Formats: sequence, structure tokens, C-alpha cells
Amino acid sequence: MTRAYNFAAGPAALPEPVLKQAQAELLNWGERGLSVMEVSHRGPEFMAVAEQAETDFRALLDISDEYAVLFLHGGASMQFSAIPMNLAPTGGEVDYVCTGHWSKKAIHEARKFADVQIAATNEPECNYIPPLKEWHLNERAAYLHYTPNETIQGVEFHWIPEVATPLVADMSSTLLSRPLPVDRFAVIYAGAQKNIGLAGLAVVIVRKDLLGKARAQTPALLDWAVMAESGSMQNTPPTFAWYLTGLVLQWIRSEGGLVEMERRNKRKADKLYTFIEDSSFYRTPVAAKCRSCMNIPFILADADLDKVFLEKTQQQGLLNLKGHRSVGGMRASLYNAVSEQAVDALIAFMQDFEATQG
Amino acid sequence: MTRAYNFAAGPAALPEPVLKQAQAELLNWGERGLSVMEVSHRGPEFMAVAEQAETDFRALLDISDEYAVLFLHGGASMQFSAIPMNLAPTGGEVDYVCTGHWSKKAIHEARKFADVQIAATNEPECNYIPPLKEWHLNERAAYLHYTPNETIQGVEFHWIPEVATPLVADMSSTLLSRPLPVDRFAVIYAGAQKNIGLAGLAVVIVRKDLLGKARAQTPALLDWAVMAESGSMQNTPPTFAWYLTGLVLQWIRSEGGLVEMERRNKRKADKLYTFIEDSSFYRTPVAAKCRSCMNIPFILADADLDKVFLEKTQQQGLLNLKGHRSVGGMRASLYNAVSEQAVDALIAFMQDFEATQG
Repeated sequence: MTRAYNFAAGPAALPEPVLKQAQAELLNWGERGLSVMEVSHRGPEFMAVAEQAETDFRALLDISDEYAVLFLHGGASMQFSAIPMNLAPTGGEVDYVCTGHWSKKAIHEARKFADVQIAATNEPECNYIPPLKEWHLNERAAYLHYTPNETIQGVEFHWIPEVATPLVADMSSTLLSRPLPVDRFAVIYAGAQKNIGLAGLAVVIVRKDLLGKARAQTPALLDWAVMAESGSMQNTPPTFAWYLTGLVLQWIRSEGGLVEMERRNKRKADKLYTFIEDSSFYRTPVAAKCRSCMNIPFILADADLDKVFLEKTQQQGLLNLKGHRSVGGMRASLYNAVSEQAVDALIAFMQDFEATQG
Repeated sequence: MTRAYNFAAGPAALPEPVLKQAQAELLNWGERGLSVMEVSHRGPEFMAVAEQAETDFRALLDISDEYAVLFLHGGASMQFSAIPMNLAPTGGEVDYVCTGHWSKKAIHEARKFADVQIAATNEPECNYIPPLKEWHLNERAAYLHYTPNETIQGVEFHWIPEVATPLVADMSSTLLSRPLPVDRFAVIYAGAQKNIGLAGLAVVIVRKDLLGKARAQTPALLDWAVMAESGSMQNTPPTFAWYLTGLVLQWIRSEGGLVEMERRNKRKADKLYTFIEDSSFYRTPVAAKCRSCMNIPFILADADLDKVFLEKTQQQGLLNLKGHRSVGGMRASLYNAVSEQAVDALIAFMQDFEATQG
């Protein structure tokens, strides 16, 4: 069987050249007679991998020395706890913007550690982005947290909030999908399992002047200063995930970097949104100006057809199109590793399905 | 090149059949046209992997329903923080036994969250196990923590402490190396990168009556009750590491289970210790009754020969024999995936080296 078209929201499609390289050297990495999974993180061979990954990551995003780049355990959700522990004093005030499932999760976790105020919300619809002029900002807030792209609802900020408080952004689904002015942010973090690599790893970009302020009762592996000081090796890091991220970063560079990723991603999303707009059978619930370039939820005219739609896509090798259980419907995630060919195949199927069933 | 003999302390050697299966299906898992790395942890395909891994793990260790088995982010070190947060009230008293590098790390972290008392220590030599009759146990302690095997110092408990307080054991290097009476323990935990699988994953076995007592300010992913309730899927788990652990567990079962692992591990360790005992050129610093079956540190008669010893072993495909930077010398780790053939090759080399250089 050839490779299927994989629209999973995460863990998501990986670039085929990355998987092929990992496969080729899985038992004999660099002609050393062992796997990259089987070597010490502190040995010179793995250290070279770790350092190259940071170098490539910094180069792709043009990250200055004012920022530390951390490769951490646990995915973005572990950072939901780490953020207030590192940035807010016990009981201190913090601002959160609520735009969907993942901002709610971040808020829920932050409430354990800080006095969370909701600067803005799009509830209950969660299908648009509240404009900045309607936000209630707290000038005593240690930081403002937002979720530039909601993977489940498919809403996305196409602008960066201009605020006085340090800006903290969960970019799990969009980091590395396009160029980004990192210097507008205090902290950017992302789970790796979308555009960066494997589940279990998170990448955190943090302005160095914010390090060293974690409260006393912060687990060592969640203390960004400790992790920066140790080169993200306070304990054994998830070495295989780090290695695979290195391969992904090299793939992105070889393909033309983030400018090229953005060009491709826009083309893919535009094609699918245009098709959906032009159809009377499919629709997307998200307001036109706030549509995600990465995660495209859509609904069939008749929800009774969901099951057969999913069965038929599966049969044709168009996989993982089911929407998140909390919202239903369909969702196509179009990360870097999803080709335009995959999107074309999906649209062709959707056209055909509409003609037959619609 | 063929596979080298890998004596790494962790990340460590993995069984070759496991790596070969992972390699064969890396791009096309179960003829689905995608990688196991690229699918949702909540989909039926991965859920079957996750559940089978727990079933096999429980079967191997004969774990009763009174215990939860958790697959968690972050390795054993993350549990250094989780243990006091889950088991001790804020400022509550806890007992720790100090027998080397890793118990010290666990103690250092626990002091952030609890009133740690040292029940026994082998410092400064760290080359023996203090007998139970010399321990100072605190009857108010919420638990007693110890490290049955110190990976760096190579000291090991060959007995289980008979104490009234709940017993918590860091079994990173020994779990799955032999049968174990799990019901003697309150909590057993281990980083996976020795006998279980990949770095970044920890397995925690916890008695269910101890769940639900975490302090309010416990990060969700460190709260065992939350993780037990969600089937270790409160967020996206390290799916590839979990899958690979599943393959390791199946390999252990197919090889004859933990009784067979113990038989092989004893044979390997006995061979190497006997050779070292019989030699006047090599020696091990560890007291005879407390020698680790997994991690065997040894010293050359002349430390000036360390460099050439390491160069020559490397040339002969005997890899990762350098002792930990904190103690120096050499160390051979003989986990399940290290064959008796590897140990024989090491001994043959050591004999030859002694004859030439000694």
C-alpha cells in the first residue's frame, strides 16, 4: 500500500522524507551500529543532534539571543501549568483570552496557580475572534495568554495583539507553518505533534529576562530557568522526538523555509475554503475573517451522512477527517506535511460525494 | 556494519527484533498507509496499542486490580516532583533513603514540597546498602522512598524493606529485569529508557487507595488520579514511546517472561563479576552483597589507561562503557536487551587488554 492522505489534527502527518530517513537509520544510525534511541543524550553524537536542532529552529524563526529555546517533556499541556508557575507570583493576577477548547484548558489549569481574569471570550459559539477594542485588559496582570489558533474550533488570529503586558502564545498548530515576528512575544510554546515532530515534546521560546522567577514549588522539569541552564537536559530528554524534530527542521529548510511553507499552506487552505464556500452541501461554522489556515472544520448539509462520508473517505485513503468529539462534523488539518495533492484529492472526493449524496 | 554491543546506561540498548519491527512498519503501520507516529492517540488503532501494552505489562508483573498502571510524560525525574505532590500534604513529613546519585536527586526535589527526613544513607562512599536495622524510621512519614538500584554507583538492594509506611521505589533500571512482588509496594516508578523503551516516558504503578490525595497545586499531568481517570490520556501521550514499549513487552513475553529475563541477567552479571573478581587488573568498588545486576561499574588498575581502554573498546564495537562523569571509571549496563554474547565479547576484550597493558 502507498502512503495514505492523512488529515489528522495531531499527532499528525510527518514529511515522508523524514520518516524514510528515520527508517533507514533506525538500527544503524550514522554507521555506528546502534539506534539514535540507544545512545546517551550527553554523548557527543546526540549532543550534535540536539544543538543542530536548536540552530535550525533559531534560523527558521530568526530567533535572537534574547530568547532561550527549550525542548521539554509533556507537550503543550504541561506548559499550561508551567506558565503561571514561571511567570506569576502565587495568587498573582494574569489575563487569559478564551477562544475555544485549548484556551479553556489553559485557563482551567492556570486557575490552580494564579488569579485568572478573562480579558475576552468568544463563548458560547467559539467561532470568531473578539476584536482587541472589546478586550478588558488588567494592567496588573503578569502576562496575557492567548491561543492564536484553536485546533478544534478552527478559529485563528490573523493579527498579533498589541498589549503592554508580556504576551504568551500557545502556537501548537501554527508554529513553523509560516514566518513569525518572535520579538513581539514574551513566550511562545507548542506541542510538537503538529508541524514540529512527535507527541511528548514541547518547544518553548522564552525571553531570557523572564527566566529565574519561578515560584519555589515549581517541579524542576517545569522550571524554565533550570531547563535553560541545563540545555533542556536536566534529566534525560525525549531523545528520539528531539532527533525527529531535527529531521523535520532540516526538511523545512531544504524545502525553502517558512516563507515557502506559508505559500503552500495558504494555497492549500484557500483551495479548500473556496471549494466549501462555493458549495451548498458543505459549510464551515467559522467567521470568514477568523478561519484557521491549519485546521478546517466543516459540516455536511445532512449530519446523517457523516458516517458514510467517513467510511468512504477511509476507503479512498483520505484519513482522519472526523471532527473532534466535542464539536462533531469533519475537520481537515493541513499541516506542512500535508501535500497540495492531498487537498486536491480531498476536494475531488467531496465534489463526488456531494454529486452522489447531496 | 552489523549492530554493535551497546552497554549504555540509558537511553540503552533495545531488543533488535523490536527495532526491526518498528523499522519495517515505520511508514506503513498495519497496512494503514501511515506511521504509528501520525495517528490520534484516541483513535481505535492507537487505543488498541495502549491497552495491549497495559495488559502485557500487568501480565508480566502479575499486577492486581488494586493498582493503577500509568504511562506518563517526563521520565522518572518528573516523578521526583509528582511523588510528594501526590502523597504528602504541604509541609508533611516523608522518609528518604539515600544510596547514591539518583536518591539524592529525588531527595533534592522532594524538599521543595515536603519535610524530608533521611532514614539512612551510605554517603560518602555510596558503595553499600545500609542494613534496615540501622535505619531511623519516622512513623509520621507519609511514605518511605528508596532507590532499589543506583544506576551510577551500581549498588542494589537484594531485599525489600519491611516497613510500616507506604513504600515508594524508583525502579528505573530494574523494572522488568526479573519478577517482582508488586504488592509489597505503594508506588513503583521507572523511566522507560532502560528495560522498558524510549526516553521521555515513565511507567508508574500506584496502589489505587493512594489516588485522589494530590495537593490542590499539582499540575494536571503530574496528578496520578487525573492521569488514572483519563487512561494516561489527559493530554496527548508520547505515543511512539508507548507503542515501542508495547513491542518491548511483547518481546519479553515471547522470550519467556521475567523468569527468563532474570535467569539471563543473572548469568550475564555473574560472568562479568566473576571475571572482575578473578582479575588483579580490574576491580569493582561496590560491596559484594550490594552489587547491581544491571549496572556494573569497574575500575582499571591504572586510571591513565582509561582513555586507551575506551578507544579500543569503541574500535571493537563495544560501546558506551565510560562511567558516569560524577564517578569516573567504566560501567557496563547489562539490561534485558544486552545479550550474553555481548558480555562474552566484553570479557574477552578485557582479558586481552589486561594481557597487553596490565
